[in-house]
Amino acid sequence: MDAYRELEGKFAQRAALGDALGLLSWDQNVLMPDGAADRRADTMAALEGLSHRLLIAPEIAELLEKATTDGSLWQTSNLAWMRRQYARAMAVPSDLVEALSSARVRSEAAWRVARETSDFESFLPRFQTVLDLTREVGTAVGEVLGLSPYDALLDGFDPGMRQAIIDPIFKDLSGKLPSLLEEVLAYQRTQPRSLRPQGPFPVEAQKKLGRAMMQRMGFDFSRGRLDVSLHPFCGGATDDVRITTRYDEADFLPALFGVIHETGHALYDQGLPSVWRGQPVGDALGMTLHESQSLIMEMQFCRSEAFTAFMGPRLAECFGVDESLPGWNAESLRQAVQDVKPGLIRVDADELTYPAHILVRYRIETDLIAGRLALRDLPEAFNAGIRELLGIEVPDNRQGCLQDIHWPEGLFGYFPCYTLGALTAAQFASAIEQTVDVDGALREGDFAPIRQWLSDHVWSRASSVPPMQLIREATGHDLSADAFLARARRRYLG
Amino acid sequence: MDAYRELEGKFAQRAALGDALGLLSWDQNVLMPDGAADRRADTMAALEGLSHRLLIAPEIAELLEKATTDGSLWQTSNLAWMRRQYARAMAVPSDLVEALSSARVRSEAAWRVARETSDFESFLPRFQTVLDLTREVGTAVGEVLGLSPYDALLDGFDPGMRQAIIDPIFKDLSGKLPSLLEEVLAYQRTQPRSLRPQGPFPVEAQKKLGRAMMQRMGFDFSRGRLDVSLHPFCGGATDDVRITTRYDEADFLPALFGVIHETGHALYDQGLPSVWRGQPVGDALGMTLHESQSLIMEMQFCRSEAFTAFMGPRLAECFGVDESLPGWNAESLRQAVQDVKPGLIRVDADELTYPAHILVRYRIETDLIAGRLALRDLPEAFNAGIRELLGIEVPDNRQGCLQDIHWPEGLFGYFPCYTLGALTAAQFASAIEQTVDVDGALREGDFAPIRQWLSDHVWSRASSVPPMQLIREATGHDLSADAFLARARRRYLG
Repeated sequence: MDAYRELEGKFAQRAALGDALGLLSWDQNVLMPDGAADRRADTMAALEGLSHRLLIAPEIAELLEKATTDGSLWQTSNLAWMRRQYARAMAVPSDLVEALSSARVRSEAAWRVARETSDFESFLPRFQTVLDLTREVGTAVGEVLGLSPYDALLDGFDPGMRQAIIDPIFKDLSGKLPSLLEEVLAYQRTQPRSLRPQGPFPVEAQKKLGRAMMQRMGFDFSRGRLDVSLHPFCGGATDDVRITTRYDEADFLPALFGVIHETGHALYDQGLPSVWRGQPVGDALGMTLHESQSLIMEMQFCRSEAFTAFMGPRLAECFGVDESLPGWNAESLRQAVQDVKPGLIRVDADELTYPAHILVRYRIETDLIAGRLALRDLPEAFNAGIRELLGIEVPDNRQGCLQDIHWPEGLFGYFPCYTLGALTAAQFASAIEQTVDVDGALREGDFAPIRQWLSDHVWSRASSVPPMQLIREATGHDLSADAFLARARRRYLG
Repeated sequence: MDAYRELEGKFAQRAALGDALGLLSWDQNVLMPDGAADRRADTMAALEGLSHRLLIAPEIAELLEKATTDGSLWQTSNLAWMRRQYARAMAVPSDLVEALSSARVRSEAAWRVARETSDFESFLPRFQTVLDLTREVGTAVGEVLGLSPYDALLDGFDPGMRQAIIDPIFKDLSGKLPSLLEEVLAYQRTQPRSLRPQGPFPVEAQKKLGRAMMQRMGFDFSRGRLDVSLHPFCGGATDDVRITTRYDEADFLPALFGVIHETGHALYDQGLPSVWRGQPVGDALGMTLHESQSLIMEMQFCRSEAFTAFMGPRLAECFGVDESLPGWNAESLRQAVQDVKPGLIRVDADELTYPAHILVRYRIETDLIAGRLALRDLPEAFNAGIRELLGIEVPDNRQGCLQDIHWPEGLFGYFPCYTLGALTAAQFASAIEQTVDVDGALREGDFAPIRQWLSDHVWSRASSVPPMQLIREATGHDLSADAFLARARRRYLG
């Protein structure tokens, strides 16, 4: 067996451990009994440790040294991903990995308390430890890969993504977003408002609606599931993609659009090419691309006027009510899913105000990692940013800089991918419209032509090329905020 | 770190893989989507391979060589189990492991077809391959451990169990069982028969009944679950013991007694000492002991007159029916759960005819492994055995030698543990009655004193001593059929 084939075997073993971890994590969030939590954490840590040791074994270094490919794009990319994973893993000393891992656990526990009480001061020491250790990791990886610490962290979530790519795009966005937002809010005030349908909306009917929507979008139930968890997510394993949602009987929109969002993620995972399963090149291509696939479904397509025209009239039947009752029509649904309203909480934000939450966090986290901002000054910087971009005052840290779990968990470099994903989704949507009558299809509730385009240009390519190249080849342009802003003007300014 | 501690770390890693496999297997049987089957099989095979390689790594041999313990019973036993697992793993060449593993997959698939059509002939070639390879494994392990091939296989399911222990016990049983059975059947014919309650019995009510029963028996729901699967089992992981059952709306007894049986297994797993979790000495002590814990609950306690006196009157309320309706009383329940009736299917057999099914299989499988019986003569030998011990004719192989999955899967040496477990359960039950008013407790539905005895004498001891020593120390006697036969006479002959 040649070195390259042997490496494929080793990485397939790691993929098996990854699948096991994906299923254990799904189980942990969906149905694990409480008393199993400690043991489950130990089990998962042991599997992660095994996977790490498989990667840094001396024979991997020897094989990577010797390996040659057949010169094809896929094998060449696969070997490059293997080398990249190896380099990242070797860059961080194992005592640093362990120190950060246990600091995260302690920090997360302290954050849960601190958030409840809005108490930033008492959380600061543990938070500082996580930040310091994360910066150390970024520095260590950066030295090996020739990147700044922040770029090294970013690259861990989104391969090839760099601050130098993001900065001009986000600068453009932060320059144009506040005035656009003002325009939209002014326009919205001039429009007549429809009534919303009255609940309660029974969970069983919502479940049926969600499953029907997944089916319509093309989710393959023979290779996946829909379940319930506190925080919706898309997880599971290869050929077994599991999404979750949660139900609120007072409003069916959060569950429905949660399902649509996670189905977007799931279609990407289910659409990856089967021949490369278990190999790095066969994986999805980082956070930005993954988020683009959920947001193109949730934001670009399913909140469109065209899709609400299809969906609106069908809701009454789904909940077994008389469709002539107030609120059970397309226009009411369109208004509800296109409502723009600046708010404090990122996860509740609409399409147009969401980027503002990210821009604030991006500026702060780059400053924190670069050492330009002291952690103790975070609340002030956060509140100033929200004031500047959204025009609202943050009343307490609970609704301010303590609202998200990302930083307390050491996930610096993760936030920008949300908005990069939103911009990518908009750019894809505009590209699809060049060859597909998207509105026509959505008015019929038909996702097939959209799915075909995404499969051809995104899913089937897996990780065979870097993210920015894939976006350029699929859309004809480098990633920018142009499509996002143009589409927003069109949607929200009539 | 000394060698022994290092070994504990290595075996804890294997236990983590074992827990992962336990949960993946549970998931596979309870909720995995069909299309994930192939990939799941690959994932589990990869994890098993990793676990095997962890065990046979050269450093394990070195550590086992060097390791010394503090001389305590638990550490000494733990090291002995490690050596035993290592010796068994090293005894079988990896190409033989792989050959048997793929032969099993092919054999199982062929068996499913052959069983449907009762076609032994066409199944024979693949069956023969599994038998030959299993015998090779038994021979290889036996050479290393100084055991006959059959003993080596047996020892894999039930450490320390030997044909020399089983033979006299089974001889005693097979000598006495047929005449006892005749007596019981004759006696039963003289007794008046109660009516049985009329269904349907809604699944939701059965679920509630099962959960209440588990609670009563002491199942810890914070560290376990009850779910549904085609074939009931007890599985899951450490601190996360999951049992399953299946529901039949025409009869609530199969689900209820299935739950009781699996809860018996689960209580053993949940009762293992927490400090030794993840170490070989902290595991349950083989098949015979495990089966004794399910059967003591199902057969000895919950089919007793005392427990049916408690349970009978409560059933009407549980199903929301008028308790004065025919069949809703203790005597009807007692008759139903103590009904003796020779039949063809092992898994449907009652307490008294079940051992006959095992005696036939044991005689045959020892002959097959020893080469005294040719596989092509299996159907004839099987049918003759059933005729001799149960007095009934086997009409076809589907209801005869093709009914069980064990042999097609290469599980030779597994069957006797079922009946050894039943005998052990009876012997434990008699021992408990020396110090505990079992009937009094069961009449109140109180399992606490029984649980205390089992915890003290079985669960808390885990694998610190060999099975036969544990039985002797718990009951004051070597394992025999005496208690089983005496208790059967008492129960079934009034």
